[in-house]
Amino acid sequence: MNDRLKEFEHYRSHMNERIAEIEHLGIKRFFNLDTQAYTQGSLDTRTKELLGLVASMVLRCNDCIDYHIIQCLELGWSDNELYDAFNVALIVGGSIVIPHLRHAVESVDLYHQAHNK
Amino acid sequence: MNDRLKEFEHYRSHMNERIAEIEHLGIKRFFNLDTQAYTQGSLDTRTKELLGLVASMVLRCNDCIDYHIIQCLELGWSDNELYDAFNVALIVGGSIVIPHLRHAVESVDLYHQAHNK
Amino acid sequence: MNDRLKEFEHYRSHMNERIAEIEHLGIKRFFNLDTQAYTQGSLDTRTKELLGLVASMVLRCNDCIDYHIIQCLELGWSDNELYDAFNVALIVGGSIVIPHLRHAVESVDLYHQAHNK
Amino acid sequence: MNDRLKEFEHYRSHMNERIAEIEHLGIKRFFNLDTQAYTQGSLDTRTKELLGLVASMVLRCNDCIDYHIIQCLELGWSDNELYDAFNVALIVGGSIVIPHLRHAVESVDLYHQAHNK
Amino acid sequence: MNDRLKEFEHYRSHMNERIAEIEHLGIKRFFNLDTQAYTQGSLDTRTKELLGLVASMVLRCNDCIDYHIIQCLELGWSDNELYDAFNVALIVGGSIVIPHLRHAVESVDLYHQAHNK
Amino acid sequence: MNDRLKEFEHYRSHMNERIAEIEHLGIKRFFNLDTQAYTQGSLDTRTKELLGLVASMVLRCNDCIDYHIIQCLELGWSDNELYDAFNVALIVGGSIVIPHLRHAVESVDLYHQAHNK
Repeated sequence: MNDRLKEFEHYRSHMNERIAEIEHLGIKRFFNLDTQAYTQGSLDTRTKELLGLVASMVLRCNDCIDYHIIQCLELGWSDNELYDAFNVALIVGGSIVIPHLRHAVESVDLYHQAHNK
Repeated sequence: MNDRLKEFEHYRSHMNERIAEIEHLGIKRFFNLDTQAYTQGSLDTRTKELLGLVASMVLRCNDCIDYHIIQCLELGWSDNELYDAFNVALIVGGSIVIPHLRHAVESVDLYHQAHNK
Repeated sequence: MNDRLKEFEHYRSHMNERIAEIEHLGIKRFFNLDTQAYTQGSLDTRTKELLGLVASMVLRCNDCIDYHIIQCLELGWSDNELYDAFNVALIVGGSIVIPHLRHAVESVDLYHQAHNK
Repeated sequence: MNDRLKEFEHYRSHMNERIAEIEHLGIKRFFNLDTQAYTQGSLDTRTKELLGLVASMVLRCNDCIDYHIIQCLELGWSDNELYDAFNVALIVGGSIVIPHLRHAVESVDLYHQAHNK
Repeated sequence: MNDRLKEFEHYRSHMNERIAEIEHLGIKRFFNLDTQAYTQGSLDTRTKELLGLVASMVLRCNDCIDYHIIQCLELGWSDNELYDAFNVALIVGGSIVIPHLRHAVESVDLYHQAHNK
Repeated sequence: MNDRLKEFEHYRSHMNERIAEIEHLGIKRFFNLDTQAYTQGSLDTRTKELLGLVASMVLRCNDCIDYHIIQCLELGWSDNELYDAFNVALIVGGSIVIPHLRHAVESVDLYHQAHNK
């Protein structure tokens, strides 16, 4: 369980490489565009990653939630700020979001366990 | 067309009053909780309204988009900052979001037409 | 505005006839199966229509909401019982359901205006 | 596999305690409101849990489905009544619901295996 | 009513121009990528437009449905082939798709009324 | 991991048998209708399975994706044609589809590993 985030990151990067091998121009460009969407623009990267996190929660995608939580924590958002963002997602998306809230809170904890030791 | 936002606000406040009259305790409390979710906490109201806007776009709800656009503009987010948030929503949610992007860009324009004169 | 429900019912029955004319066997059978799903079984029709209403609210489809509200009111569910069902939908589906809650509360009112006179 | 429901309940109560520890007022209040939504009101708890189950199925959330199946079985709904509710969810939500129907039918069986011995 | 498709096309192209004026690089690139996704590749444009149509129906977006119906009819798909695609969308997406099926069947009829005269 | 598709097929057929045992007429008829939706009509089975695949991707259901990938590969769609269909799904559904794209690309690979040896 402790390694859930690590396994996700491993699988994610492994499969992204496999997808790159396919050499589908449209898919490749979409991945680039996805990366660019979170770079500094009128909004900074920190804010955009938080937007991506809340979007992922209301759309109920655990892998997307984990990806953005890791980014948000590395960009310096505090746990309490993330919990506040989780709350917005919970209110907008309703109780159907609760299983993903459990997952998200656990992911924050797992991240700190892996990095604070 | 110019009055689309005004009509929405009128209908919204009229029906919210009607819902209040119903005196359903659960519904009433949910409305309070919804209001509180955007008040200053670990995150400030400005950031939370932007989160609410992106959540509304990926969930594809025009009324919710209009509500949060008005809040965001009144809290001082610039058009370019909103467009950057729209872009995150577009990338996360895909081309199915485009009709709501059209609506959102139009709502920003309508807001300025109503307030800059 | 008073005639919103009537217009919906007119359009709905007009287009359902047009769809029947198409004579697509799969579509025809789906429509039959849809009708049968709400007939008395282990659960009675009243309960099933209420289930259909809540499903329609969390999936955020105003036409489906109106259809099931009319059925529920004709089957004797009281306004307060419907409001209680609306509340379950609101909690499960979150604030993104609110525009549909407004629509649903208005539809209940419109139904009574049309039938109590 | 026999222990799938037990593991879910363990994880669910463990993480709900962890979420309570966070002491986020908005999240805490949402959890209370969620609990209250299923208490006796104009509709009784039995009916509301069945509404919650169908809402969970059309929104395709296995954890939510399991939670409401357990509640429904403990409140005395028969298997055939639940299957009738599953059918409404299947018709409203379509074949995309089928994997969740498999999960739900299995959960009903697992519940009885655990309780009838 | 006859002009519903024409109004949609007018609004769509008007707002797409307005969005282009915004000069947001990410949004601009997404629009290009969206256009390219339907050009001849391993699959031909005709097949891809039909895929786009079914995706739009199960995601329940009337504007997207109208856009792809127009493309499909101009690329030579027959009404009966479109109805067969509608049926797949109806089975996958369930009765919640029915209001969009009504819209889609009407759009096919409106297209022919505008072009056969 | 190599056996993921085999396990899915085993679980799927096992639970479908269990669902058949329940003898719920509505559910049984829906399963028949679902099968019929992909038989030769105005569109052929190959095209319909590809439509079902894209619908499953934008609705983000891994089990449904796997089912249609297997059908598509057995009906002779090439990997590059499937990737082109995945790209349409990715553009329509956005980055929230990416975890399902990873799953789908892996499923295509697993299918070939199992059948080419």
